[in-house]
Amino acid sequence: MARLQRSPAHRAPLDTHAECRLEVTTAGQGFTDITREAAAFLAEIGARDGVLVAFCRHTSASLTLQENADPDVQRDLLTALDRLAPQHAGWVHDSEGPDDMPAHVRTLLSGVSLAIPVSAGRLALGTWQGLYLIEHRLAAHRREVVLAFTGHTGR
Amino acid sequence: MARLQRSPAHRAPLDTHAECRLEVTTAGQGFTDITREAAAFLAEIGARDGVLVAFCRHTSASLTLQENADPDVQRDLLTALDRLAPQHAGWVHDSEGPDDMPAHVRTLLSGVSLAIPVSAGRLALGTWQGLYLIEHRLAAHRREVVLAFTGHTGR
Amino acid sequence: MARLQRSPAHRAPLDTHAECRLEVTTAGQGFTDITREAAAFLAEIGARDGVLVAFCRHTSASLTLQENADPDVQRDLLTALDRLAPQHAGWVHDSEGPDDMPAHVRTLLSGVSLAIPVSAGRLALGTWQGLYLIEHRLAAHRREVVLAFTGHTGR
Repeated sequence: MARLQRSPAHRAPLDTHAECRLEVTTAGQGFTDITREAAAFLAEIGARDGVLVAFCRHTSASLTLQENADPDVQRDLLTALDRLAPQHAGWVHDSEGPDDMPAHVRTLLSGVSLAIPVSAGRLALGTWQGLYLIEHRLAAHRREVVLAFTGHTGR
Repeated sequence: MARLQRSPAHRAPLDTHAECRLEVTTAGQGFTDITREAAAFLAEIGARDGVLVAFCRHTSASLTLQENADPDVQRDLLTALDRLAPQHAGWVHDSEGPDDMPAHVRTLLSGVSLAIPVSAGRLALGTWQGLYLIEHRLAAHRREVVLAFTGHTGR
Repeated sequence: MARLQRSPAHRAPLDTHAECRLEVTTAGQGFTDITREAAAFLAEIGARDGVLVAFCRHTSASLTLQENADPDVQRDLLTALDRLAPQHAGWVHDSEGPDDMPAHVRTLLSGVSLAIPVSAGRLALGTWQGLYLIEHRLAAHRREVVLAFTGHTGR
C-alpha cells in the first residue's frame, strides 16, 4: 500500500497576471530546452508564488517536462513517438508531407499546455525535470510559446 | 541549434474568477469544436487577460487542441487512437461494452484538462488550433465541460 | 451533429494562492488515489472557487484522472501503457534498469500536470473521476506532488 503525507499549506496574496511570448526557431525534429527562458521571465516580473502556464500555439509541436540529464532519454522518446505514430501509415491527410500527420498525432499524445507551480520565485520542478518544446516536423520551424504567470509578485 | 527570443512581459491586475458549464451532446465517436463557446464565455464575462481552464468531467471523453482546417486530420487522429487502443485487445474490463476500455485508454493519452492563456479578451490560440471535445464511445453521450477563467475583467 | 448548451457564468473574487506538498510513497508500479488528500488540502485552506493545479515532480511517475469504480480499469490501463512502451524494446538509455526508459515514455504519454476547477470548495470532478498518481517504476519510490490553489477562500 502507498503511504501519503501532506505538508502544511503556505499562503500568498494574488496580485498579478503577466505574460510574454517566446519564439523558438527549431532546427527540425527534436527537443529544445526552454527552462532557462521560463525562469528568466519569472525573474523579470519579480514572480514570487503562483502558477506558470506554458502554452504551445501549434498542432505539430508540443511541450513536455522530461529528463534533463542523459540526452539518450530524448533520443529514445523520439524513437517511441516514431513507433507510436509512424510515417507512411496510410494517413488520409498527407498534402503537407509524410511527416505532417505523424506530427499531429505526436502533439495529441504529448500535449501543448502545462501548468507549473512557482514557489518563492522558482519553478517547482523536480531535480531531473526540464521544460522542453518538441519539434515534430522534420524541417526547421519558427514556433511560438506563451508563458503566463498568475500569482504574487510583490511589486 | 535552436534559437530563442523572448518578448517583453505584459502585466495586468487580477480580480476575477468566473466559471460556467458547457453541456455537449455528442453524436457518438468524433470531434466537437467548442472554440466558439469558449470565446462566447470570455466575451460574456468581459475577460481581458488571464488563463482559461477547460476541463472534461469524464473518463471516456477528452479535450484536445488540434487542426481546425482539414477535417481529414480529425479522421486520421481517430484512426491513430484506434490503433493505439484497439477494441477486443484482451481487456479485463468489458462489462460496459467493447468500446469502453479503449475509450478510457484514449482519454488517458489525450487528457481532460487544458490551460489556455487569454490575451486582451481572446484565447491565445495559434492560427490552426481549435479546441475540441473528443467523444471516444461509439454511442451518443451527454458530456459536461467546465470552463474556468482566472484573471482580469475590468468590471 | 453535436448540440451545445452553456450555463450562465458564476463569478467570484480572487484573493489567495495556497500551496502544499504531498509525499506519496508508492509500492511500485500502479495507481495511488490522491483525491482525498487534494480535497483535504482545499478544506484546510477554506477554498471556495478557483483552480487546483496538481503537479508531479518526476519523469517516471505521472498524474491522471481516471475511473474510480472498477479496479479492472486500472489494471487494463497498465496493460495498455505496457504495450505502448514495452521493456526491452531496444532503448539506448538503460543504465537505470529496463523499466526506466518505458517509465519515461509512459510519463510523456500520460502527463504530470493537471488543472482542475474548484466550485464552492469542491473539485469539479465527474462522478467516475478520481485523481491518481501512476508509479511507472517497478520498485517502490518516494514521489512528491505539488498542490497549488488559485482563487477565492473568503479568509
